[in-house]
Amino acid sequence: MSIAPWRSHLASALKKNRNQPHSRYFQLATVRSDGTAANRTVVFRGFLEDTDKLKIITDARSEKITEINNQSWGEICWYFTNTREQFRIVGKITIIDANHHESELQKARESTWQELSDNARIQFVWAHPGKPRANPEAFSPPQPDANKPLDNFCLLLFEPVKVDHLRLRGEPQNRTFYMRDEAGVWDVSEVNP
Amino acid sequence: MSIAPWRSHLASALKKNRNQPHSRYFQLATVRSDGTAANRTVVFRGFLEDTDKLKIITDARSEKITEINNQSWGEICWYFTNTREQFRIVGKITIIDANHHESELQKARESTWQELSDNARIQFVWAHPGKPRANPEAFSPPQPDANKPLDNFCLLLFEPVKVDHLRLRGEPQNRTFYMRDEAGVWDVSEVNP
Ligand SMILES: Cc1cc2nc3c(=O)[nH]c(=O)nc-3n(C[C@H](O)[C@H](O)[C@H](O)COP(=O)(O)O)c2cc1C
Ligand SMILES: Cc1cc2nc3c(=O)[nH]c(=O)nc-3n(C[C@H](O)[C@H](O)[C@H](O)COP(=O)(O)O)c2cc1C
Repeated sequence: MSIAPWRSHLASALKKNRNQPHSRYFQLATVRSDGTAANRTVVFRGFLEDTDKLKIITDARSEKITEINNQSWGEICWYFTNTREQFRIVGKITIIDANHHESELQKARESTWQELSDNARIQFVWAHPGKPRANPEAFSPPQPDANKPLDNFCLLLFEPVKVDHLRLRGEPQNRTFYMRDEAGVWDVSEVNP
Repeated sequence: MSIAPWRSHLASALKKNRNQPHSRYFQLATVRSDGTAANRTVVFRGFLEDTDKLKIITDARSEKITEINNQSWGEICWYFTNTREQFRIVGKITIIDANHHESELQKARESTWQELSDNARIQFVWAHPGKPRANPEAFSPPQPDANKPLDNFCLLLFEPVKVDHLRLRGEPQNRTFYMRDEAGVWDVSEVNP
């Protein structure tokens, strides 16, 4: 597979903003079953090996899982504060949960779990997110097995089909659309900001 | 009107993060006519006087206008990097464009225009956003009248009905839901992060 043409720009933004831990966070928008928008911050966990698919981790008990099962298209909005540039990424989301049948993706889910910090892993043992606040004990469970992902641990794969790259620092500003056609070829065009 | 209970927390976050210009930016998610999510960064322009409605400005030619006309509910995701807290705000968006009939809101649109910098105002004279890149001349038009908003200048009013306030810095973390009932009364509840 050839790497998408927007990847080098994203890599450069990640590099130039790496002194900011928040440069690895972006906002993921999905659609609720009532047809309204949902939006939350998540952590970028790198690309799935040899693909342009972004990795995100989440809890099977979180609302976004129901939303993605209902409408698998989402949009990422990723603003880099040092370089003042934004990537908006439209894509299709695949949920790799404990029951996912493809063994290659199950392996990716496992290795993502293994690479997490203890602090990130333990959150998957916490009480049900969004339910009335549980007792403090519910938040100090024993550490889960660092090798085997818990059942509620999900890997999300976000596969981009459109990228809108806006750079505020231009004169005036610069904005580039990247659009992937059915054959997987990316079309690049300069547009008005 | 009494001020909503989440307002003091937001005011405190704005204060503690004010050394970061990006603390006044948030991501606004809407829904496209094909039922998929859209997401972009916009600037917080304060609250409409004596209300809990957030002000946002935009161009009538931008995609979000079509989207909001189709589905007026959106979600704001606002992450504050210094204090590591997130406000997710569900609300209904009203577009105050040049043809809006309520004179009070037309006044708010006018004063918002007047308070903009020259730099922000001139963008409304630029070539059509998202269309193939125009010649450089299209981006150096004469300054528009600072008193009278251009026809394509829109004020968006975002009226919150639900706020999800997540603070990563707690032990473990803290998360509070604020929900407005039909009578306009806010219910507050502590939930699991
Ligand atoms: C800085 C930051 C990073 C976060 N990273 C993630 C993440 O990687 N995955 C995740 O599911 N939630 C993450 N969250 C929590 C989400 O914003 C959200 O509260 C949670 O996923 C529940 O959302 P949902 O019920 O709409 O699915 C993060 C929150 C913040 C503030
Ligand atoms: C830091 C930053 C601030 C922005 N502020 C606004 C804003 O206040 N209003 C706006 O319409 N667009 C703003 N934009 C541009 C939007 O992100 C987006 O590119 C534009 O509104 C077109 O989106 P749409 O076609 O989906 O409506 C901002 C972009 C950045 C990176």
